[in-house]
Amino acid sequence: MAFAARSGGLATARSVAALRVRVGDWRADGHTVALVPTMGALHRGHGALIEAARRIADRVIVSLFVNPTQFGPSEDFQAYPRDEGRDAAFCDDLGVDLLFAPTVTEMYPAGFATSIRVAGLTEGQCGAFRPGHFDGVATVVAKLFTQARPDSALFGEKDFQQLAVIRRLNRDLDLGVNVVGVPTVREADGLALSSRNAYLSADERRIAPALYRSLQDAARAIAGGARVPAACAEAREQVLKAGFASVDYVECVDVDSLKPLVEFEPARPARILAAARLGRARLIDNLAVIG
Amino acid sequence: MAFAARSGGLATARSVAALRVRVGDWRADGHTVALVPTMGALHRGHGALIEAARRIADRVIVSLFVNPTQFGPSEDFQAYPRDEGRDAAFCDDLGVDLLFAPTVTEMYPAGFATSIRVAGLTEGQCGAFRPGHFDGVATVVAKLFTQARPDSALFGEKDFQQLAVIRRLNRDLDLGVNVVGVPTVREADGLALSSRNAYLSADERRIAPALYRSLQDAARAIAGGARVPAACAEAREQVLKAGFASVDYVECVDVDSLKPLVEFEPARPARILAAARLGRARLIDNLAVIG
Repeated sequence: MAFAARSGGLATARSVAALRVRVGDWRADGHTVALVPTMGALHRGHGALIEAARRIADRVIVSLFVNPTQFGPSEDFQAYPRDEGRDAAFCDDLGVDLLFAPTVTEMYPAGFATSIRVAGLTEGQCGAFRPGHFDGVATVVAKLFTQARPDSALFGEKDFQQLAVIRRLNRDLDLGVNVVGVPTVREADGLALSSRNAYLSADERRIAPALYRSLQDAARAIAGGARVPAACAEAREQVLKAGFASVDYVECVDVDSLKPLVEFEPARPARILAAARLGRARLIDNLAVIG
Repeated sequence: MAFAARSGGLATARSVAALRVRVGDWRADGHTVALVPTMGALHRGHGALIEAARRIADRVIVSLFVNPTQFGPSEDFQAYPRDEGRDAAFCDDLGVDLLFAPTVTEMYPAGFATSIRVAGLTEGQCGAFRPGHFDGVATVVAKLFTQARPDSALFGEKDFQQLAVIRRLNRDLDLGVNVVGVPTVREADGLALSSRNAYLSADERRIAPALYRSLQDAARAIAGGARVPAACAEAREQVLKAGFASVDYVECVDVDSLKPLVEFEPARPARILAAARLGRARLIDNLAVIG
Protein backbone atom coordinates (compact mmCIF):
# COMPACT_ATOMS: atom_id res chain seq x y z
CA MET A 1 0.00 0.00 0.00
CA ALA A 2 1.30 3.43 -0.95
CA PHE A 3 1.36 6.21 1.60
CA ALA A 4 0.80 8.97 -0.90
CA ALA A 5 0.56 12.55 0.25
CA ARG A 6 -2.97 13.25 1.36
CA SER A 7 -5.37 14.83 -1.00
CA GLY A 8 -6.77 16.67 2.00
CA GLY A 9 -10.12 14.92 1.76
CA LEU A 10 -10.25 13.13 5.11
CA ALA A 11 -12.05 14.98 7.87
CA THR A 12 -10.69 14.81 11.42
CA ALA A 13 -12.80 15.37 14.52
CA ARG A 14 -10.85 16.41 17.61
CA SER A 15 -13.79 16.78 19.98
CA VAL A 16 -16.66 14.55 21.00
CA ALA A 17 -19.04 17.32 19.95
CA ALA A 18 -17.61 17.40 16.40
CA LEU A 19 -17.74 13.61 16.21
CA ARG A 20 -21.39 13.61 17.24
CA VAL A 21 -22.34 16.28 14.70
CA ARG A 22 -20.84 14.18 11.91
CA VAL A 23 -22.42 10.94 13.09
CA GLY A 24 -25.74 12.73 13.60
CA ASP A 25 -25.66 13.94 9.98
CA TRP A 26 -25.00 10.41 8.77
CA ARG A 27 -27.82 9.03 10.90
CA ALA A 28 -30.19 11.66 9.55
CA ASP A 29 -29.31 10.41 6.06
CA GLY A 30 -30.06 6.82 7.09
CA HIS A 31 -26.45 5.62 7.01
CA THR A 32 -25.01 2.89 9.20
CA VAL A 33 -21.75 3.57 11.01
CA ALA A 34 -18.79 1.37 11.95
CA LEU A 35 -16.00 2.34 14.32
CA VAL A 36 -12.44 1.03 14.22
CA PRO A 37 -10.76 1.99 17.51
CA THR A 38 -6.96 2.20 17.20
CA MET A 39 -3.96 3.68 18.96
CA GLY A 40 -2.58 4.80 15.57
CA ALA A 41 0.70 3.44 14.16
CA LEU A 42 -1.55 1.79 11.61
CA HIS A 43 -0.49 -1.29 9.68
CA ARG A 44 -2.14 -3.88 7.42
CA GLY A 45 -3.80 -5.44 10.46
CA HIS A 46 -5.70 -2.19 10.96
CA GLY A 47 -6.22 -2.15 7.20
CA ALA A 48 -8.09 -5.45 7.47
CA LEU A 49 -10.30 -3.95 10.20
CA ILE A 50 -11.07 -0.94 8.02
CA GLU A 51 -11.86 -3.11 5.01
CA ALA A 52 -14.16 -5.29 7.10
CA ALA A 53 -15.82 -2.12 8.45
CA ARG A 54 -16.45 -0.84 4.93
CA ARG A 55 -18.15 -4.11 4.03
CA ILE A 56 -20.65 -3.91 6.91
CA ALA A 57 -21.39 -0.19 7.22
CA ASP A 58 -22.02 2.84 5.05
CA ARG A 59 -19.63 5.08 6.97
CA VAL A 60 -16.36 4.22 8.74
CA ILE A 61 -14.75 6.10 11.62
CA VAL A 62 -11.18 5.32 12.70
CA SER A 63 -10.27 6.60 16.15
CA LEU A 64 -6.61 7.40 16.85
CA PHE A 65 -5.95 7.65 20.56
CA VAL A 66 -2.97 6.40 22.52
CA ASN A 67 -4.89 5.79 25.72
CA PRO A 68 -2.70 6.55 28.75
CA THR A 69 -4.90 4.67 31.22
CA GLN A 70 -4.22 1.28 29.65
CA PHE A 71 -0.44 1.60 30.08
CA GLY A 72 1.24 0.66 33.35
CA PRO A 73 3.82 3.02 34.91
CA SER A 74 6.71 0.94 33.55
CA GLU A 75 5.17 0.44 30.11
CA ASP A 76 5.71 2.14 26.74
CA PHE A 77 3.16 4.97 26.75
CA GLN A 78 5.75 7.64 25.97
CA ALA A 79 7.59 5.50 23.42
CA TYR A 80 4.48 4.25 21.64
CA PRO A 81 4.84 5.20 17.95
CA ARG A 82 2.81 8.25 16.88
CA ASP A 83 2.53 9.64 13.34
CA GLU A 84 -0.88 11.11 12.69
CA GLY A 85 -0.05 12.37 9.20
CA ARG A 86 0.95 8.92 8.06
CA ASP A 87 -2.08 7.33 9.77
CA ALA A 88 -4.41 9.85 8.13
CA ALA A 89 -2.97 9.09 4.68
CA PHE A 90 -3.35 5.37 5.37
CA CYS A 91 -7.02 5.85 6.30
CA ASP A 92 -7.67 8.15 3.36
CA ASP A 93 -6.32 5.53 0.96
CA LEU A 94 -8.69 2.95 2.42
CA GLY A 95 -11.76 5.15 2.10
CA VAL A 96 -12.26 5.96 5.79
CA ASP A 97 -14.88 8.68 6.23
CA LEU A 98 -13.75 10.29 9.48
CA LEU A 99 -10.78 10.25 11.79
CA PHE A 100 -11.51 10.81 15.46
CA ALA A 101 -8.29 12.01 17.07
CA PRO A 102 -9.09 13.49 20.47
CA THR A 103 -6.53 14.90 22.88
CA VAL A 104 -5.97 13.29 26.25
CA THR A 105 -7.78 16.18 27.95
CA GLU A 106 -10.76 15.80 25.61
CA MET A 107 -11.05 12.17 26.68
CA TYR A 108 -10.13 12.73 30.34
CA PRO A 109 -11.00 16.29 31.34
CA ALA A 110 -9.97 17.69 34.71
CA GLY A 111 -11.86 15.87 37.46
CA PHE A 112 -12.32 12.67 35.46
CA ALA A 113 -12.87 9.92 38.03
CA THR A 114 -14.67 6.96 36.46
CA SER A 115 -13.31 3.52 35.66
CA ILE A 116 -14.86 0.31 34.41
CA ARG A 117 -13.80 -3.14 35.43
CA VAL A 118 -14.75 -6.41 33.81
CA ALA A 119 -14.15 -9.14 36.37
CA GLY A 120 -13.09 -12.68 35.58
CA LEU A 121 -11.97 -12.35 31.96
CA THR A 122 -9.36 -9.76 32.92
CA GLU A 123 -7.70 -11.74 35.68
CA GLY A 124 -5.60 -14.26 33.76
CA GLN A 125 -3.20 -14.04 30.81
CA CYS A 126 -2.23 -10.42 30.04
CA GLY A 127 -4.37 -9.18 32.93
CA ALA A 128 -2.09 -10.93 35.41
CA PHE A 129 0.98 -9.22 33.94
CA ARG A 130 -0.50 -5.81 33.22
CA PRO A 131 -2.46 -4.73 36.31
CA GLY A 132 -5.10 -2.13 35.41
CA HIS A 133 -4.55 -2.55 31.67
CA PHE A 134 -8.00 -3.95 30.92
CA ASP A 135 -9.71 -1.41 33.18
CA GLY A 136 -8.14 1.24 30.95
CA VAL A 137 -9.23 -0.60 27.81
CA ALA A 138 -12.79 -1.14 29.07
CA THR A 139 -13.16 2.49 30.13
CA VAL A 140 -11.86 3.99 26.89
CA VAL A 141 -13.82 1.58 24.68
CA ALA A 142 -17.04 2.28 26.60
CA LYS A 143 -16.37 5.99 26.08
CA LEU A 144 -15.70 5.57 22.35
CA PHE A 145 -18.90 3.55 22.03
CA THR A 146 -21.03 6.14 23.86
CA GLN A 147 -19.32 9.00 22.03
CA ALA A 148 -19.76 7.63 18.51
CA ARG A 149 -22.75 5.29 19.05
CA PRO A 150 -21.70 3.13 16.10
CA ASP A 151 -23.73 0.20 14.80
CA SER A 152 -20.59 -1.93 14.69
CA ALA A 153 -17.04 -1.80 16.03
CA LEU A 154 -14.16 -3.92 14.80
CA PHE A 155 -11.24 -5.30 16.78
CA GLY A 156 -8.39 -7.62 15.89
CA GLU A 157 -8.34 -11.19 17.13
CA LYS A 158 -4.63 -10.69 17.80
CA ASP A 159 -5.71 -9.05 21.06
CA PHE A 160 -7.92 -11.99 21.87
CA GLN A 161 -8.39 -11.28 25.57
CA GLN A 162 -9.17 -7.64 24.80
CA LEU A 163 -11.82 -8.75 22.30
CA ALA A 164 -13.42 -11.03 24.91
CA VAL A 165 -13.41 -8.21 27.48
CA ILE A 166 -15.00 -5.79 25.03
CA ARG A 167 -17.72 -8.26 24.04
CA ARG A 168 -18.54 -8.72 27.73
CA LEU A 169 -18.46 -4.98 28.44
CA ASN A 170 -20.70 -4.27 25.47
CA ARG A 171 -23.26 -6.82 26.60
CA ASP A 172 -23.10 -5.91 30.28
CA LEU A 173 -23.51 -2.16 29.79
CA ASP A 174 -26.11 -2.53 27.03
CA LEU A 175 -23.98 -0.50 24.66
CA GLY A 176 -25.82 -2.05 21.73
CA VAL A 177 -22.80 -2.27 19.42
CA ASN A 178 -22.19 -5.19 17.07
CA VAL A 179 -18.65 -6.15 18.16
CA VAL A 180 -16.80 -7.86 15.31
CA GLY A 181 -13.51 -9.73 15.66
CA VAL A 182 -11.24 -9.78 12.62
CA PRO A 183 -8.60 -12.51 12.06
CA THR A 184 -4.98 -11.65 12.74
CA VAL A 185 -2.92 -10.44 9.79
CA ARG A 186 0.59 -11.91 9.61
CA GLU A 187 3.87 -11.30 7.88
CA ALA A 188 4.99 -13.94 5.38
CA ASP A 189 7.00 -15.68 8.12
CA GLY A 190 3.99 -15.84 10.43
CA LEU A 191 4.75 -12.91 12.76
CA ALA A 192 1.48 -11.25 13.79
CA LEU A 193 1.37 -7.62 12.70
CA SER A 194 1.69 -5.27 15.66
CA SER A 195 2.67 -1.66 16.11
CA ARG A 196 5.13 -2.90 18.71
CA ASN A 197 7.06 -4.92 16.10
CA ALA A 198 8.70 -1.55 15.34
CA TYR A 199 10.62 -1.95 18.61
CA LEU A 200 12.46 -5.03 17.29
CA SER A 201 16.06 -4.89 16.07
CA ALA A 202 16.91 -6.77 12.87
CA ASP A 203 18.15 -9.72 14.93
CA GLU A 204 15.08 -9.71 17.12
CA ARG A 205 12.87 -9.51 14.04
CA ARG A 206 14.39 -12.78 12.83
CA ILE A 207 13.66 -14.42 16.19
CA ALA A 208 10.10 -13.05 16.57
CA PRO A 209 8.20 -15.56 14.34
CA ALA A 210 9.19 -18.33 16.76
CA LEU A 211 6.27 -17.25 18.95
CA TYR A 212 3.73 -18.09 16.27
CA ARG A 213 5.54 -21.27 15.22
CA SER A 214 5.63 -22.56 18.77
CA LEU A 215 1.90 -21.88 19.16
CA GLN A 216 1.21 -23.71 15.90
CA ASP A 217 3.22 -26.69 17.11
CA ALA A 218 1.45 -26.69 20.46
CA ALA A 219 -2.01 -26.37 18.88
CA ARG A 220 -1.22 -29.24 16.55
CA ALA A 221 0.08 -31.38 19.42
CA ILE A 222 -2.99 -30.64 21.59
CA ALA A 223 -5.37 -31.36 18.72
CA GLY A 224 -3.44 -34.62 18.18
CA GLY A 225 -3.95 -35.72 21.77
CA ALA A 226 -0.93 -34.32 23.64
CA ARG A 227 -1.56 -33.25 27.22
CA VAL A 228 -2.32 -29.52 27.40
CA PRO A 229 0.13 -28.56 30.19
CA ALA A 230 2.96 -30.48 28.50
CA ALA A 231 2.29 -28.89 25.10
CA CYS A 232 2.20 -25.38 26.62
CA ALA A 233 5.44 -26.06 28.52
CA GLU A 234 7.04 -27.27 25.32
CA ALA A 235 5.95 -24.07 23.48
CA ARG A 236 7.41 -21.98 26.29
CA GLU A 237 10.74 -23.83 25.94
CA GLN A 238 10.75 -23.36 22.16
CA VAL A 239 10.18 -19.61 22.51
CA LEU A 240 13.00 -19.23 25.02
CA LYS A 241 15.31 -21.42 22.96
CA ALA A 242 14.62 -19.24 19.90
CA GLY A 243 15.99 -16.25 21.78
CA PHE A 244 13.08 -14.55 23.56
CA ALA A 245 14.14 -13.03 26.89
CA SER A 246 11.17 -14.36 28.84
CA VAL A 247 7.69 -15.80 28.49
CA ASP A 248 4.81 -14.27 30.44
CA TYR A 249 2.45 -17.14 29.69
CA VAL A 250 1.46 -19.82 27.20
CA GLU A 251 -2.04 -21.07 27.95
CA CYS A 252 -4.71 -23.08 26.21
CA VAL A 253 -8.07 -21.63 27.24
CA ASP A 254 -11.80 -21.97 26.73
CA VAL A 255 -12.66 -19.28 24.13
CA ASP A 256 -15.59 -17.88 26.13
CA SER A 257 -14.38 -17.89 29.73
CA LEU A 258 -10.61 -17.69 28.94
CA LYS A 259 -10.18 -20.22 31.75
CA PRO A 260 -7.12 -22.47 31.20
CA LEU A 261 -8.00 -25.95 30.07
CA VAL A 262 -6.35 -29.01 31.56
CA GLU A 263 -7.79 -31.25 28.89
CA PHE A 264 -8.75 -30.36 25.35
CA GLU A 265 -12.18 -31.54 24.15
CA PRO A 266 -12.70 -31.14 20.41
CA ALA A 267 -16.37 -30.14 20.96
CA ARG A 268 -15.36 -27.21 23.18
CA PRO A 269 -13.76 -24.31 21.26
CA ALA A 270 -10.28 -23.65 22.59
CA ARG A 271 -7.54 -21.16 21.85
CA ILE A 272 -3.88 -21.06 22.71
CA LEU A 273 -2.61 -17.66 23.86
CA ALA A 274 0.89 -16.42 24.62
CA ALA A 275 2.89 -13.35 25.58
CA ALA A 276 6.67 -13.16 25.54
CA ARG A 277 9.36 -10.51 25.74
CA LEU A 278 11.97 -9.87 23.08
CA GLY A 279 14.26 -6.86 23.42
CA ARG A 280 12.09 -3.80 24.15
CA ALA A 281 8.97 -5.50 22.84
CA ARG A 282 6.34 -7.58 24.58
CA LEU A 283 4.72 -9.62 21.84
CA ILE A 284 1.40 -11.45 22.06
CA ASP A 285 -0.20 -13.96 19.75
CA ASN A 286 -2.91 -16.62 19.74
CA LEU A 287 -4.61 -19.15 17.53
CA ALA A 288 -7.50 -21.58 17.52
CA VAL A 289 -6.95 -25.18 18.50
CA ILE A 290 -8.83 -27.20 15.89
CA GLY A 291 -9.63 -30.73 17.04
CA MET B 1 -53.15 11.58 45.78
CA ALA B 2 -55.55 8.70 45.23
CA PHE B 3 -54.27 5.25 44.40
CA ALA B 4 -57.27 4.30 42.31
CA ALA B 5 -57.43 0.95 40.59
CA ARG B 6 -55.55 1.15 37.34
CA SER B 7 -57.44 1.84 34.18
CA GLY B 8 -54.99 -0.48 32.45
CA GLY B 9 -53.58 2.33 30.33
CA LEU B 10 -49.96 2.34 31.46
CA ALA B 11 -47.62 0.20 29.39
CA THR B 12 -44.88 -1.75 31.15
CA ALA B 13 -41.66 -2.88 29.47
CA ARG B 14 -39.95 -5.83 31.15
CA SER B 15 -37.08 -6.20 28.71
CA VAL B 16 -34.45 -3.83 27.36
CA ALA B 17 -35.60 -4.78 23.85
CA ALA B 18 -39.20 -3.72 24.58
CA LEU B 19 -37.98 -0.49 26.17
CA ARG B 20 -35.91 0.33 23.10
CA VAL B 21 -38.77 -0.35 20.70
CA ARG B 22 -40.96 2.10 22.58
CA VAL B 23 -38.27 4.77 22.85
CA GLY B 24 -37.40 4.24 19.17
CA ASP B 25 -41.00 4.89 18.19
CA TRP B 26 -41.03 8.10 20.23
CA ARG B 27 -37.77 9.23 18.68
CA ALA B 28 -39.12 8.54 15.21
CA ASP B 29 -42.03 10.84 16.08
CA GLY B 30 -39.62 13.56 17.19
CA HIS B 31 -40.42 13.31 20.90
CA THR B 32 -37.99 14.03 23.73
CA VAL B 33 -37.70 11.50 26.52
CA ALA B 34 -37.05 11.81 30.26
CA LEU B 35 -36.21 8.96 32.59
CA VAL B 36 -36.99 8.82 36.32
CA PRO B 37 -34.97 5.93 37.80
CA THR B 38 -36.53 4.56 40.99
CA MET B 39 -36.48 1.49 43.21
CA GLY B 40 -40.27 1.65 43.42
CA ALA B 41 -42.09 2.24 46.73
CA LEU B 42 -43.04 5.54 45.17
CA HIS B 43 -43.98 8.57 47.27
CA ARG B 44 -44.51 12.28 46.71
CA GLY B 45 -40.76 12.76 46.34
CA HIS B 46 -40.86 10.56 43.25
CA GLY B 47 -44.01 12.43 42.26
CA ALA B 48 -42.00 15.65 42.17
CA LEU B 49 -39.44 13.96 39.91
CA ILE B 50 -42.17 12.77 37.56
CA GLU B 51 -43.80 16.20 37.45
CA ALA B 52 -40.44 17.83 36.70
CA ALA B 53 -39.86 15.23 33.98
CA ARG B 54 -43.19 16.02 32.35
CA ARG B 55 -42.27 19.70 32.24
CA ILE B 56 -39.02 19.08 30.34
CA ALA B 57 -39.83 16.16 28.04
CA ASP B 58 -42.61 14.91 25.78
CA ARG B 59 -42.48 11.37 27.12
CA VAL B 60 -41.66 10.11 30.64
CA ILE B 61 -40.33 6.68 31.59
CA VAL B 62 -40.23 5.57 35.24
CA SER B 63 -37.96 2.62 35.93
CA LEU B 64 -38.79 0.36 38.89
CA PHE B 65 -35.83 -1.78 39.86
CA VAL B 66 -34.63 -2.70 43.32
CA ASN B 67 -30.98 -3.00 42.35
CA PRO B 68 -29.31 -5.78 44.35
CA THR B 69 -25.76 -4.59 43.60
CA GLN B 70 -26.18 -1.36 45.56
CA PHE B 71 -27.11 -3.15 48.78
CA GLY B 72 -24.45 -4.49 51.13
CA PRO B 73 -24.75 -8.02 52.52
CA SER B 74 -26.14 -6.74 55.83
CA GLU B 75 -28.49 -4.19 54.24
CA ASP B 76 -32.20 -4.25 53.48
CA PHE B 77 -32.38 -5.65 49.93
CA GLN B 78 -34.85 -8.38 50.88
CA ALA B 79 -36.91 -6.12 53.14
CA TYR B 80 -37.04 -3.17 50.71
CA PRO B 81 -40.74 -2.40 50.10
CA ARG B 82 -42.08 -3.67 46.75
CA ASP B 83 -45.60 -3.11 45.38
CA GLU B 84 -45.60 -2.79 41.64
CA GLY B 85 -49.37 -2.52 41.30
CA ARG B 86 -49.46 0.46 43.62
CA ASP B 87 -46.44 2.05 41.91
CA ALA B 88 -48.02 1.57 38.49
CA ALA B 89 -51.23 3.26 39.63
CA PHE B 90 -49.20 6.12 41.10
CA CYS B 91 -47.39 6.60 37.78
CA ASP B 92 -50.58 6.30 35.75
CA ASP B 93 -52.19 9.05 37.81
CA LEU B 94 -49.22 11.32 37.10
CA GLY B 95 -49.30 10.76 33.35
CA VAL B 96 -46.19 8.59 33.04
CA ASP B 97 -45.93 7.09 29.55
CA LEU B 98 -44.00 3.89 30.26
CA LEU B 99 -42.91 1.81 33.23
CA PHE B 100 -39.65 -0.06 32.81
CA ALA B 101 -39.70 -2.91 35.33
CA PRO B 102 -36.99 -5.39 34.41
CA THR B 103 -36.21 -8.56 36.35
CA VAL B 104 -32.84 -8.98 38.05
CA THR B 105 -31.78 -11.47 35.36
CA GLU B 106 -32.75 -9.05 32.59
CA MET B 107 -30.41 -6.47 34.14
CA TYR B 108 -27.70 -8.92 35.20
CA PRO B 109 -27.81 -11.99 32.94
CA ALA B 110 -25.66 -15.04 33.67
CA GLY B 111 -22.00 -14.13 33.21
CA PHE B 112 -22.48 -10.44 34.00
CA ALA B 113 -19.07 -9.17 35.13
CA THR B 114 -18.83 -5.40 34.69
CA SER B 115 -18.75 -2.72 37.35
CA ILE B 116 -18.22 1.01 37.28
CA ARG B 117 -16.44 2.98 39.94
CA VAL B 118 -16.41 6.74 40.38
CA ALA B 119 -13.38 7.58 42.51
CA GLY B 120 -13.17 10.46 44.95
CA LEU B 121 -16.82 11.45 45.29
CA THR B 122 -17.74 7.97 46.52
CA GLU B 123 -15.14 7.74 49.28
CA GLY B 124 -16.60 9.95 51.99
CA GLN B 125 -20.06 10.27 53.61
CA CYS B 126 -22.31 7.32 52.71
CA GLY B 127 -19.53 5.74 50.64
CA ALA B 128 -17.47 5.24 53.79
CA PHE B 129 -20.35 3.42 55.51
CA ARG B 130 -21.72 1.48 52.55
CA PRO B 131 -18.77 -0.12 50.75
CA GLY B 132 -19.60 -0.91 47.12
CA HIS B 133 -22.92 0.96 47.27
CA PHE B 134 -21.98 3.66 44.79
CA ASP B 135 -20.34 1.16 42.43
CA GLY B 136 -23.74 -0.54 42.29
CA VAL B 137 -25.50 2.78 41.74
CA ALA B 138 -23.06 3.92 39.03
CA THR B 139 -23.30 0.60 37.18
CA VAL B 140 -27.08 0.39 37.20
CA VAL B 141 -27.55 4.05 36.28
CA ALA B 142 -25.08 3.75 33.39
CA LYS B 143 -27.06 0.73 32.20
CA LEU B 144 -30.39 2.54 32.49
CA PHE B 145 -28.93 5.46 30.53
CA THR B 146 -27.56 3.26 27.74
CA GLN B 147 -30.73 1.16 27.69
CA ALA B 148 -33.19 4.04 27.45
CA ARG B 149 -30.93 6.76 25.97
CA PRO B 150 -33.10 9.51 27.47
CA ASP B 151 -32.55 13.20 26.84
CA SER B 152 -32.90 13.88 30.57
CA ALA B 153 -32.91 11.93 33.80
CA LEU B 154 -34.17 13.19 37.14
CA PHE B 155 -32.88 12.40 40.62
CA GLY B 156 -33.77 13.69 44.07
CA GLU B 157 -31.43 16.02 45.92
CA LYS B 158 -32.21 13.99 49.04
CA ASP B 159 -29.58 11.53 47.79
CA PHE B 160 -27.11 14.35 47.30
CA GLN B 161 -23.97 12.26 47.08
CA GLN B 162 -25.68 9.90 44.62
CA LEU B 163 -26.63 12.88 42.46
CA ALA B 164 -23.02 14.10 42.43
CA VAL B 165 -21.76 10.62 41.51
CA ILE B 166 -24.27 10.33 38.66
CA ARG B 167 -23.38 13.76 37.27
CA ARG B 168 -19.70 12.75 37.27
CA LEU B 169 -20.43 9.33 35.73
CA ASN B 170 -22.57 10.90 33.02
CA ARG B 171 -19.85 13.36 32.08
CA ASP B 172 -16.99 10.88 32.32
CA LEU B 173 -18.63 8.19 30.19
CA ASP B 174 -20.08 10.69 27.69
CA LEU B 175 -23.56 9.35 28.30
CA GLY B 176 -25.00 12.60 27.00
CA VAL B 177 -27.91 12.78 29.42
CA ASN B 178 -29.15 16.01 30.97
CA VAL B 179 -28.98 15.07 34.68
CA VAL B 180 -31.48 17.11 36.70
CA GLY B 181 -31.57 17.32 40.48
CA VAL B 182 -34.96 17.96 42.10
CA PRO B 183 -35.34 19.50 45.59
CA THR B 184 -36.21 17.21 48.48
CA VAL B 185 -39.89 16.85 49.32
CA ARG B 186 -40.65 16.87 53.06
CA GLU B 187 -43.45 16.00 55.43
CA ALA B 188 -45.06 18.90 57.28
CA ASP B 189 -42.69 18.35 60.22
CA GLY B 190 -39.62 18.49 57.96
CA LEU B 191 -38.85 14.78 57.60
CA ALA B 192 -37.50 14.12 54.10
CA LEU B 193 -39.70 11.68 52.19
CA SER B 194 -38.04 8.30 51.83
CA SER B 195 -39.24 4.80 51.09
CA ARG B 196 -37.31 3.76 54.19
CA ASN B 197 -39.52 5.91 56.44
CA ALA B 198 -41.88 2.93 56.24
CA TYR B 199 -39.50 1.07 58.56
CA LEU B 200 -40.15 3.55 61.40
CA SER B 201 -42.42 2.70 64.32
CA ALA B 202 -44.85 5.39 65.49
CA ASP B 203 -42.40 6.42 68.23
CA GLU B 204 -39.49 6.52 65.82
CA ARG B 205 -41.54 8.54 63.35
CA ARG B 206 -41.95 11.23 66.04
CA ILE B 207 -38.17 11.29 66.61
CA ALA B 208 -37.20 11.28 62.91
CA PRO B 209 -37.66 15.00 62.08
CA ALA B 210 -34.85 15.80 64.54
CA LEU B 211 -32.38 14.94 61.79
CA TYR B 212 -33.60 17.77 59.57
CA ARG B 213 -34.00 20.21 62.47
CA SER B 214 -30.46 19.60 63.63
CA LEU B 215 -29.16 20.18 60.09
CA GLN B 216 -31.15 23.40 59.88
CA ASP B 217 -29.69 24.57 63.17
CA ALA B 218 -26.17 23.66 62.08
CA ALA B 219 -26.56 25.35 58.67
CA ARG B 220 -27.83 28.50 60.37
CA ALA B 221 -24.99 28.44 62.86
CA ILE B 222 -22.36 27.95 60.14
CA ALA B 223 -23.85 30.70 57.97
CA GLY B 224 -23.78 32.89 61.06
CA GLY B 225 -20.08 32.35 61.62
CA ALA B 226 -19.90 29.30 63.89
CA ARG B 227 -16.93 26.99 63.36
CA VAL B 228 -17.85 24.15 61.01
CA PRO B 229 -16.54 21.22 63.10
CA ALA B 230 -18.25 22.56 66.23
CA ALA B 231 -21.57 23.05 64.44
CA CYS B 232 -21.45 19.53 62.98
CA ALA B 233 -20.58 18.06 66.39
CA GLU B 234 -23.50 19.94 67.91
CA ALA B 235 -25.88 18.56 65.24
CA ARG B 236 -24.64 15.06 65.96
CA GLU B 237 -25.34 15.55 69.67
CA GLN B 238 -28.84 16.89 68.96
CA VAL B 239 -29.67 13.87 66.79
CA LEU B 240 -28.51 11.41 69.43
CA LYS B 241 -30.29 13.31 72.17
CA ALA B 242 -33.53 13.20 70.17
CA GLY B 243 -33.36 9.40 70.25
CA PHE B 244 -31.47 8.24 67.15
CA ALA B 245 -29.41 5.10 67.86
CA SER B 246 -26.28 6.35 66.12
CA VAL B 247 -24.96 8.93 63.68
CA ASP B 248 -22.87 7.80 60.70
CA TYR B 249 -21.76 11.33 59.85
CA VAL B 250 -22.68 14.99 59.87
CA GLU B 251 -20.46 16.90 57.46
CA CYS B 252 -20.41 20.29 55.79
CA VAL B 253 -18.94 19.82 52.31
CA ASP B 254 -18.07 21.64 49.12
CA VAL B 255 -21.01 20.95 46.78
CA ASP B 256 -18.82 19.91 43.84
CA SER B 257 -16.05 17.85 45.41
CA LEU B 258 -18.02 16.72 48.51
CA LYS B 259 -14.80 17.35 50.44
CA PRO B 260 -15.48 18.35 54.06
CA LEU B 261 -14.96 22.05 54.74
CA VAL B 262 -13.09 23.26 57.78
CA GLU B 263 -14.18 26.82 57.18
CA PHE B 264 -17.30 28.06 55.43
CA GLU B 265 -16.82 30.77 52.80
CA PRO B 266 -20.09 32.35 51.63
CA ALA B 267 -18.78 32.56 48.04
CA ARG B 268 -18.19 28.81 47.88
CA PRO B 269 -21.41 26.75 47.71
CA ALA B 270 -21.61 24.37 50.66
CA ARG B 271 -24.01 21.72 51.85
CA ILE B 272 -24.48 19.94 55.12
CA LEU B 273 -25.07 16.18 54.83
CA ALA B 274 -25.96 13.59 57.44
CA ALA B 275 -26.85 9.94 57.92
CA ALA B 276 -28.16 8.47 61.16
CA ARG B 277 -29.79 5.27 62.36
CA LEU B 278 -33.19 5.04 63.99
CA GLY B 279 -34.68 1.60 64.66
CA ARG B 280 -34.43 -0.46 61.46
CA ALA B 281 -34.00 2.64 59.32
CA ARG B 282 -30.88 4.45 58.19
CA LEU B 283 -32.05 7.96 57.34
CA ILE B 284 -30.14 10.53 55.28
CA ASP B 285 -30.77 14.21 54.70
CA ASN B 286 -28.97 17.33 53.53
CA LEU B 287 -29.46 21.01 52.88
CA ALA B 288 -27.70 24.01 51.45
CA VAL B 289 -25.73 26.30 53.73
CA ILE B 290 -26.72 29.80 52.65
CA GLY B 291 -24.20 32.43 53.71
